[in-house]
Parts: sequence; structure tokens; C-alpha cells
Amino acid sequence: MAVPVWSVDPRTGKQREQVAVEATAEEIDAVVRAAAAAAPALADRIVRARLLRTAADFLEEAGPRILEAADAETALGPGRLTGELGRTTYQLRAFADIVDEGAFLDVIIDHADPSLAPPRPDLRRYKIPLGVVAVYSASNFPLAFSVPGGDTASALAAGCPVVVKAHPDHPATSELCADALRRAAVAVGLPVDVVAVVHGFEAGVELVKHPLVSAAGFTGSVRGGRALFDAAAARPVPIPFHGELGSLNPVVITEAAAEERAEQIGAGLAGSLTLGVGQFCVKPGLVLAPEGEAGDRLLKSLTGAVSDAPAGTLLDARMRDNFIAGVRERAELPGVQAPVEPGDGGEHLVRPGFVSVPAARLTEPGDYDALLEECFGPVTVVARYATPGELEAVLGRLPGNLTATAHISEAEASGDGPGADLLARLTPLAGRVVVNGWPTGVAVAPAMHHGGPYPATTSTSTSVGGTAIERWLRPVVYQDAPAALLPTELRDDNPLGLPRRVDGHREA
Amino acid sequence: MAVPVWSVDPRTGKQREQVAVEATAEEIDAVVRAAAAAAPALADRIVRARLLRTAADFLEEAGPRILEAADAETALGPGRLTGELGRTTYQLRAFADIVDEGAFLDVIIDHADPSLAPPRPDLRRYKIPLGVVAVYSASNFPLAFSVPGGDTASALAAGCPVVVKAHPDHPATSELCADALRRAAVAVGLPVDVVAVVHGFEAGVELVKHPLVSAAGFTGSVRGGRALFDAAAARPVPIPFHGELGSLNPVVITEAAAEERAEQIGAGLAGSLTLGVGQFCVKPGLVLAPEGEAGDRLLKSLTGAVSDAPAGTLLDARMRDNFIAGVRERAELPGVQAPVEPGDGGEHLVRPGFVSVPAARLTEPGDYDALLEECFGPVTVVARYATPGELEAVLGRLPGNLTATAHISEAEASGDGPGADLLARLTPLAGRVVVNGWPTGVAVAPAMHHGGPYPATTSTSTSVGGTAIERWLRPVVYQDAPAALLPTELRDDNPLGLPRRVDGHREA
Repeated sequence: MAVPVWSVDPRTGKQREQVAVEATAEEIDAVVRAAAAAAPALADRIVRARLLRTAADFLEEAGPRILEAADAETALGPGRLTGELGRTTYQLRAFADIVDEGAFLDVIIDHADPSLAPPRPDLRRYKIPLGVVAVYSASNFPLAFSVPGGDTASALAAGCPVVVKAHPDHPATSELCADALRRAAVAVGLPVDVVAVVHGFEAGVELVKHPLVSAAGFTGSVRGGRALFDAAAARPVPIPFHGELGSLNPVVITEAAAEERAEQIGAGLAGSLTLGVGQFCVKPGLVLAPEGEAGDRLLKSLTGAVSDAPAGTLLDARMRDNFIAGVRERAELPGVQAPVEPGDGGEHLVRPGFVSVPAARLTEPGDYDALLEECFGPVTVVARYATPGELEAVLGRLPGNLTATAHISEAEASGDGPGADLLARLTPLAGRVVVNGWPTGVAVAPAMHHGGPYPATTSTSTSVGGTAIERWLRPVVYQDAPAALLPTELRDDNPLGLPRRVDGHREA
Repeated sequence: MAVPVWSVDPRTGKQREQVAVEATAEEIDAVVRAAAAAAPALADRIVRARLLRTAADFLEEAGPRILEAADAETALGPGRLTGELGRTTYQLRAFADIVDEGAFLDVIIDHADPSLAPPRPDLRRYKIPLGVVAVYSASNFPLAFSVPGGDTASALAAGCPVVVKAHPDHPATSELCADALRRAAVAVGLPVDVVAVVHGFEAGVELVKHPLVSAAGFTGSVRGGRALFDAAAARPVPIPFHGELGSLNPVVITEAAAEERAEQIGAGLAGSLTLGVGQFCVKPGLVLAPEGEAGDRLLKSLTGAVSDAPAGTLLDARMRDNFIAGVRERAELPGVQAPVEPGDGGEHLVRPGFVSVPAARLTEPGDYDALLEECFGPVTVVARYATPGELEAVLGRLPGNLTATAHISEAEASGDGPGADLLARLTPLAGRVVVNGWPTGVAVAPAMHHGGPYPATTSTSTSVGGTAIERWLRPVVYQDAPAALLPTELRDDNPLGLPRRVDGHREA
């Protein structure tokens, strides 16, 4: 009995249309086999780059329809979604450039050296694609972290076919994007099955267990991600599982920073925590602000700015229920104040807000532990610290994070005082350390790292930026392979002009 | 009640001396805490490089005692062990050079670009050490893959303190090496606890579960390695587990190669499979040789050479029992021949040999599956194929391997015939593809890759060669960090002269 997959409008709770049906185990098997059969066609890097660029073109062409569907399914709004489509096509083209350049192949050549003891053979190493990659779409980025998103782009760039498990919050968008990607494959002469999309929770579990799936990328909750991570690790042949699961994204505001610009920081924090109705994985979820007059001013500014923020629609009704229950649980703890109480904002809406608590309540395990857990949606926890010891005690209790942010004064930024120590203290907690800014907004750039200690990610990898391609590759070395049989990438004359390291020396 | 750890002479089965006691859970906790406390001292790369070089010096100074103990405990012989000590000190110094050069830091800098939409902040990324690394020593390399081996050297190079779980086959050697490493730490002004050694099976399990252990390296059996891998994955905070578990190391001999040099290949194979009494993880365990006259000549040559090989001593009595049982199980299968029957070679000895079977028996799952499993010790399985289809069917059934080897003719090496196709066919099976040579002998070189699809390794990493350092690092990026607070490695003026990528361009 086919289980229907509906597109739902979160602004009304109404079903829009039936988009697909959930894939059965047999269907997953067929899709994965087709993807695996398409893998050899992706060996040609020139075609891969063309696929990525054509996919970007086709997504832009289909842009109006995609944006309309995405807005109707996610309520994220046309402005945000237009930006996200731009991010998505930019990513695809950036990975095409990365494919062209070929540095990711990590070519290392050591010529034979018979003078060594023992004599060294000729060794030529580069990286090859792992095979079929399973991608689990995010709820909160229907484009940039979903069907045509960074995981898909980086896996295709690496030469891996992709089977995407669509997120149930945006199945229609997923189908439209899949159509663009698959048409792009055909247009550049690749098998259509280099990308496929499936729907259904059970389908996702089947997918990660399939013997022909070689790696997985995931963006979502700790609960769902950990279950899939466990399934990946428990396979007869375990596979790499690159999951981004959850992050509190702590922000530390020094006394001097609060004294210098309390109002500006309060307003900036309000903007960051309410952006996209608080539905970013890098939303600041815990803010360590000083007790005292400057901290009070900061909270006053935050209160004003958050009070001005409109109610918004979360991605689905379950998230709304969880948000309302989550903020209530936090606000009801003794000693917790809610200057702007977050919660139910009327039918299908939620109200942004924040709670405040003395940091002293968070320094030991106990009833207040919920305040150190991510709450998805437009809320943050402000913990007021009275001493450096309290600040340190709270930091010492934090799990891994995608980001950690420091707000410091001008003098501290120039090297006076605890600025450097604070950065050093935040570094073990996160994959990105932000100074005097906000963690929301993740630039797509070569240096970007979007990942961090568990549960931020389940591996040491990034899902944003050029190095995301490294997740889908493994090295192989050829020993004494005759020149006539070598892959072109490993030939002495370097006809592809690849950056490489030869006999210990880098060649640009 | 303390459990004693004995050094045993495998040539006699006699206990030599009590070396230590097994570590209790409390002792593991204390050792790991001390290692974690020593981590900040390893942040200085200059001191790390000095530690590695001093360790090499001290190991050489202690060489005579170490070699005597190692030979007495492992029966590997002074020649082999002297070579292994050289490999070990070479590795330590090679990693010191890698630390000096700093390419492993993988510095990427993107300056702020306000002209982009959205504007790009200043981003500066490099890699930092993960924390305490647990290393599980190999039985068969008491030096180069044990206490002072590649895992330890690469982890220290990365800036990670190391706790080694010694292998029970060479506890005295482990203690002597630990002493050299710990004296080296003190000599360069580091806390002694940057390296520690513990003994005991249960201690090893405790170690991988300890909250302050951040990653693990392992060389050993599929059974032991998988149990530890599972424990690492099941932790509340899972950690990377880089295990090298097992490998069949298939060898394919083409008809033309056999016709060209059957005798040479047979003799070479005998040398490779009996080297070190067959106790290498890259020992060729399955040889696909053609049916027919040329293949017969090859087997005749192999028979003669293996018959000439002396009986030898395996690392311990359990391995000897397993070897004798394993070769008997294989030789007793109907249709399996044993031209030189391997097995019991007299008290404490084993006899090298090989078995031969029609490849047609191996093309489907069934009674002959044992022939596709690694058997540790001086034995190989020669499968005679009659057609390319049989060859392909057997290759299609193989698990992942560290190596795959092709023997091809001169004409095939120059591009005529199936040479390139054969290399392409072997590539998915292994991390190293050897042509017209033997997999035994793993050069320590920048391009080396010692790893492969599961169960060869549990990750995509290598445990030999310069890139082994990548296992113990994770990236972190600083966003808009003031110049005065940046780590030296990320400063614009590059005072350390690090290779890096700035605004998309590589700087040597």
C-alpha cells in the first residue's frame, strides 16, 4: 500500500497536494543500484563540472516555480528563499571550479629511489570517489542544504552519484529541484540516475543500510542524525556518516564589550536570534552576558528589539509544538525570567523571545540542563555571569558546537586584556569562532568550516565551503605502475596541469 | 588483584619475565587525565618536532636493549628488527620534518570582501589537534606499528598526547620504547605524560570509552578491531576510530605475464608470502593464476621455492594454533590441493606452504568462503582461473583490501591488451595497487597510502606516510578575529612561512 507524501502549507496547516509516495525497500534498492551503475560515467571531471554548471542554470530557469513551491511549503518567504537559491547555484558553480582546478585530487608523486634502504618504488597517489552517497535533506534550507545543496554538489563534484532523501517539510520543492538536476544530467550526456530523490522515513533508514551506499551526509536533529549514524556504524561494512546534528552556538560578551556597546550588541543579538524565525543551525542559543549595569543595558536593548520582532511561522506544526513546549519548560524553571516571553503566537504562529537566568544555576548538572540544550526556533537563553569563574564553569559544561562567538571591546581586540585567552577558550568548543559578529550567515568560501565537535558534527568534516568535497573521496596509490597505464592525473608530464606534490616539493 | 603481564619467548613458550600489571579502570582514568593535562604543552610545534627527533635519538641509543627484548619476545630475528627500528626512527624524523613544514595545518585565508552579496567576512582556517589519542599496538611490528610507531609519531606530530595500549606479544619491548619516548619528552621540556603505555585487554576497552580520549588508531584483527570500532561509535560522544583490521591482498597474474616469466613470478611470490613468516598485513593471501601450461610452470616454481623455505616461529602460541587450524580447514576442502602443505612445523614452529583451488569454486558463496578470508601466517591460496569471467567473478566477491597486485607482461605494460582495464578493476578493491611487484614492503613516503576499503581500514585514512597526520586534526575557522588575537599561523604576514591558500591562490 503506497504511503502518500503530501506538501503542506505551514501557514494554514492545510495539505497542498500529493507530491509522491514513500519509497519501499525494493524501490530504494532499485534507485541505489541505478545510481551505482551510473558512477563510472562521473569519472570524467570535465563532464562533472559541466553537470554542476548546467544544474545551476536549470535551477535558475526553474527558479520562479521552485521559489513559489518552497515558500508555500516552508513559509520562509520569497526574500530569504531567493537568497538561498542564489547561494545554491553559487555553490554548484563553486564546486565546478573546484573540479576544474583539481587540487582536491591531492596528487602526490614520489619517484623511485633505489639509493634508499630499502629502495623506494615509484608511488603515485590521488583521491578517487567513494561511490553512491546518501544525502539527508535539512528542514530549514529547502534548497542550499537539500536536494541541490552543498552535500549533493560536493558529492557530485567528487564523482559520486547521489540519492537524496527529501525532507518531509518540502517534498514539492524537492521534486522540482530533482527534476532540474536530472535534466541537467541528461543535457550533459550523463545517465539520469546520477541524482535521484526518495521520500519517506523508513526509506531513509533503508538507504543508509544499503550495501551499495558508500557514505552519507545529513543535516538535522540530534535524535534523527544519531539514529542514522548508529545504523551506518552498525553495517557489516560501516560507512562514513557526515552528520550535522545540533548546536547551541554560545556567545560570550565581555564586561568591557557590554560597557562599550551594550545597545548595539543587544540589537544585533535580537536580529540574529529572530532571523528566519530562529530556524538556523547557527542561531545563538546561549548568551553569556555580564551581571551589572552594562549587562542590564544590553538586556534592555535586547528586550526592546525582540519585542519589535513579528510573530512568524515555523516550518511545520510539530516544530511549533516542540518550540512552544520547549520555551515553556525553560521559562517555568525557578529563577528564570522571560522579559519577552516566547511561545504561541496565535494560529500557526510563534512569538520570538528570550529567557534570562543567573549563570550560577548552570554551573552544575541538574534541573537547569534544558537551558544548555538547543531549542529550535526564535529563542535564546541569556545567562548572566557575575565572575570569570562562573563564565568558565558554564563553558566547561557545553557540548560541541558549530560556532562560538566572542564580543569584546576595542581595547581587548587590540590585545589588551583577556581577548586572546577568550578566543583560545572558545576554540575547543566549536568549528567556527566569530568575533564581534553573529554566527548566523555562513559564507560559502574556501576557508569556511561548518562543523564542530559532536553533536555539531559526527565527523571532523565541513558541509559548507570547498573542503566539503573531501568527505566523498579516498586515496589510492599506484606502485610501479607503467606510464602507459597510469591515470592521466598521475602522469609525469601533468597534462591536466594539476597542483601536486612531487618528490616532496609542491607544484602549483 | 593485579593481573601480571608476562613477556613470553615464542621460540620456547616460556615466560621470560613479568614486565608490568594490567591497568585497572582507575589507572586508565588517571593516565588519560594526565595525558589530557599535558596537551597544551604540545601546542608548540618547535617543541613537537624536537620531541620526535629526540625520541628517535633515544630509541637508537637504547637500540641494542630494545632489539634484544624484541627478538626474545617476537622471534622476528635481529635482521628484520634492526630494519624495523630504522623504519621507526626514520618515521619519527619524517614527521618532525612534516611538523616543521606545516603544510598539514592546511591554512586557508579568505579576506573580507564587502563587494559580495552577502558580504564575506574575514575567514582564516587551519587545523588543530583533536586531543588525547589512543593507540592500539600491532602484534607483528613491535616497533614501527607499536609504542613508537606511525600512529604515535603522527599523533604527537599533530599535537595530540598519546596513550598506547601495548600488545601482549611484546610488553618488554613496549616498556623499553615507552621509556625512551618519555625520557625524550622530559629532555625537551615537555610533561612526561604526553606519551604513556598501558597493558591489558580490558584496559584497552576502557581506553576507547574514556570521555577524554578523542580519537583512536588500531592495527590488528578484524574481530578485535571491530569490537573497539563499535565501542568508539557507541560512545555518548563518538570518536574517529582509524583501524587497520585485515586484508587478503589479492594478486592477479595475467596469462601473458605467466607465459613471459612464470618462474620469476613463482619465486617472487614464495618470497613475499614467507617473508617474516607470513606475518605481514600485506602478505598476498589470494593469487589468481591462469590455468594451463604457463600457470603450471608458475606453480612449479612456487612449489620449489616454498619447499625450500625454512620453518619459522609465529609471534605467539595462539597464532600458531590458529594458523595450523586455518590451513587444515582450507586444505581439507574437496578439490583443494596442497602442493606444499603448510602447518605444524614441529615444536613452536610452523611450516610455510600454499593451497591451490580452481577459481570456479570461489565464484559463488558457499563452502569455499574460508579461502577468501585472511589466514595470518605463511600461506597463500592460489586460485586457477580458466576464463576472464571466472577471474572477474572472484574479484567481485572480495572484501576491501590494503593492496591489490597485478602481474602483467611487457606488452601489457606498454598499453597493449587488458593492462589498463585490470588496474581499473583492482582500484576499487584496495588502497594500493602494485604492478609487477609484491605488496610486502610498505615504503614510508609522502605518497604512500596504507589503508583501503573495509575491513582493510575502518576509515578512508592511511597509517603509513605523511598524510597519516591528518587523522588527528580537525579544522577551525576564525571569523573577523582581530589581527592582534590571531594564532601566529593565521597572521597575514605569515611569520612562520607556512604554505597556505589565500583568497583562492596557493602560496608555496
